[in-house]
Amino acid sequence: MKKASIVSIGNELLNGQTVDTNTTYLSGQLLTIGLPVVSSYTIGDEMDAIVRAFNLAGTDADIVLATGGLGPTDDDLTRQAFAKFLGTELQLKADLLHRIQNFFTKRNVQMSEKNKIQAYIPAGAKALANPLGTAPGIMAEAKGKLLVALPGVPSEMKQMFAESVLSELQRFAGTQAVVVRKLRCFGTGESNIAELLGPLMQRGRNPLINCTVEYGVITLHIIATAEDKNKARQMAEKEEKSLRNTLGELVYGTEEQTLAEVVGEKLARQKMTITVAESCTGGTLVRLLTDIPGASRYFTHGWVTYSNTAKTGELGVPADLIQKYGAVSEQVAQAMARGARKKAQTDFAISITGIAGPAGGTEQKPVGLVYICVDSDNGCDTKRCLFSHDRRFIRLRAAQTALNMLRLKLNI
Amino acid sequence: MKKASIVSIGNELLNGQTVDTNTTYLSGQLLTIGLPVVSSYTIGDEMDAIVRAFNLAGTDADIVLATGGLGPTDDDLTRQAFAKFLGTELQLKADLLHRIQNFFTKRNVQMSEKNKIQAYIPAGAKALANPLGTAPGIMAEAKGKLLVALPGVPSEMKQMFAESVLSELQRFAGTQAVVVRKLRCFGTGESNIAELLGPLMQRGRNPLINCTVEYGVITLHIIATAEDKNKARQMAEKEEKSLRNTLGELVYGTEEQTLAEVVGEKLARQKMTITVAESCTGGTLVRLLTDIPGASRYFTHGWVTYSNTAKTGELGVPADLIQKYGAVSEQVAQAMARGARKKAQTDFAISITGIAGPAGGTEQKPVGLVYICVDSDNGCDTKRCLFSHDRRFIRLRAAQTALNMLRLKLNI
Repeated sequence: MKKASIVSIGNELLNGQTVDTNTTYLSGQLLTIGLPVVSSYTIGDEMDAIVRAFNLAGTDADIVLATGGLGPTDDDLTRQAFAKFLGTELQLKADLLHRIQNFFTKRNVQMSEKNKIQAYIPAGAKALANPLGTAPGIMAEAKGKLLVALPGVPSEMKQMFAESVLSELQRFAGTQAVVVRKLRCFGTGESNIAELLGPLMQRGRNPLINCTVEYGVITLHIIATAEDKNKARQMAEKEEKSLRNTLGELVYGTEEQTLAEVVGEKLARQKMTITVAESCTGGTLVRLLTDIPGASRYFTHGWVTYSNTAKTGELGVPADLIQKYGAVSEQVAQAMARGARKKAQTDFAISITGIAGPAGGTEQKPVGLVYICVDSDNGCDTKRCLFSHDRRFIRLRAAQTALNMLRLKLNI
Repeated sequence: MKKASIVSIGNELLNGQTVDTNTTYLSGQLLTIGLPVVSSYTIGDEMDAIVRAFNLAGTDADIVLATGGLGPTDDDLTRQAFAKFLGTELQLKADLLHRIQNFFTKRNVQMSEKNKIQAYIPAGAKALANPLGTAPGIMAEAKGKLLVALPGVPSEMKQMFAESVLSELQRFAGTQAVVVRKLRCFGTGESNIAELLGPLMQRGRNPLINCTVEYGVITLHIIATAEDKNKARQMAEKEEKSLRNTLGELVYGTEEQTLAEVVGEKLARQKMTITVAESCTGGTLVRLLTDIPGASRYFTHGWVTYSNTAKTGELGVPADLIQKYGAVSEQVAQAMARGARKKAQTDFAISITGIAGPAGGTEQKPVGLVYICVDSDNGCDTKRCLFSHDRRFIRLRAAQTALNMLRLKLNI
């Protein structure tokens, strides 16, 4: 079985400034094509250190994936180290230079002299297109090893990996059948999921079930291994069915789906529309909704009403209601949702009012207290939540919880 | 100058499931006591791989800091590898066994036989107390090198590092004072900054200037090293002044400050208020503004007007203006900002209208085209931008650019 090793290059990775997420991303991607990562090296922007890491990684594995050090400044040395590793020289590629110049021309910006270095590639190596930036990637086969260098900027690296590298790796590594499925869940904690699944989550099982958590979204990774792709896919599908049976409505989607995406699809399919009236989340919910391309099919406009006056003026929440129950109350949440829905003439309206902190909490109404209301022709459905952690977490969890409430309504 | 190298141990770090934040944390901590990290190795739970990584790290540096692999299960092999590296055997420590047994007794839990292995330490090494868990750390000096192993659980690792390791490292490394300052910049590219700073960014300089980029924000790390803290601070301050002189208004803040935070502080101090009218950014800007605690001092409410009807209905943008110039135009951006400011009665209004993609672009108005307008008593200031990358990036860059336009107005 072919193996891979990862080399991360950049001083910022060694001075405590930047968390290296590229290694995690690449490891996960390689796993999906059955390539285990056996080691990873992180070094600063130093020629000898980079060449040495290439050599070490090449000893550990058949495939060496490097990120970082392809920028235009003097401390970007990966392309020089790549050439040294191959025992060749850098060559200016006219087509690359042309592409980089174009990148700047299109933006009406003068290309810096520094950027010229990015048009140099080790002789005998292949340049990989970078659709998002000026740094091309580099790929070469030598002594039975495959060496690939990609930029360190995660968005550029990911797109280039998907477009230009993944298929090359599959070709180089030969067939190995691993199928990974992801199930996305929302509405309970990790330990509850683990309890519900019981022995299914045991180590060493095939399919293997791994569990990761991020902002309340629990992702179950089903990793099925078999002699061929078909067999592995069947195993993963069978496992997915069994997990869905056990978890029911806790499962909201698959693969990279977000709650907003799933909710958006349901709204579009059912030809329903939505508006929002946010207080403490201050745009967190509407941003999630409009992160999805094509959100205009179900969303036309919404409000962020932070002050009491705005809740009254924009949404028609009675001032005496706020006076009597406080802005953070079930009553005001309902009046906000009803007011927004009436004004926007939509099928659904979501309102959120709460205390995101760090200041503003009291004993009766502590930081993290949030009321979420979903209004529709079937009436108001209001949820009282108490989130912990910090302001950022409280705001995001409140918005996610609101989307989940709407999702469950749209399931019917 | 003494140097350090970090070894991270654990299969989960190489299968795409866990982001290694320990290396970043330790690197940052070491930098504050003047210990540069020159390399970092990540390997799975395999005896030979761990010993080899210890040897490599010991060749690179004087201090080797390892995390992970100290748990009670069979695949935790760090203590055995530590002993092999030292050329000694593991020894049962009665006091450690007693402490581990106590840990379980206090929790009314029966200690598993497996946990007994955690009471074994290489002969000649020192055990480090773990106040939060059962895995003790291990420390030993051999052949002029200092080797330290800590658990991989971040909370346990951090507490043990602060309580038992940091002072030992200072003793071992001798005193060396490092002061790190961060300068945050916005409004130009990395290569332009590099050109402006020229020789200041040379490697090996003291203070050293490192440069990192994230969503258009360029961070300059000034790292000054000297015999004592005072001297280092003076050097960093002098360097900061000189950088500020060169970069002028490109510098918006220091340390962890965000654009929204700096803009918010200026608004609050000048007792000014702001509203927003967002189209393509769909809440990205208002979320950034309200991410800041106390945003209610300068922000009361805002609109996300996605559809043309909403722009007309909520903000009073003339329908024939949209008809004539299109929703993505300087004219509509200005009408949105003016309409929002009039309705919210604020000192400033920011509007954003553009094409975030991936669909909806034309030759005249491509994806990434965004008009941003800041309206105030001094009139409308409108900027035409063409951002690249994906939807998420375009939205965030547009919101950041809007905040930066407002910042420059508030500087006056």
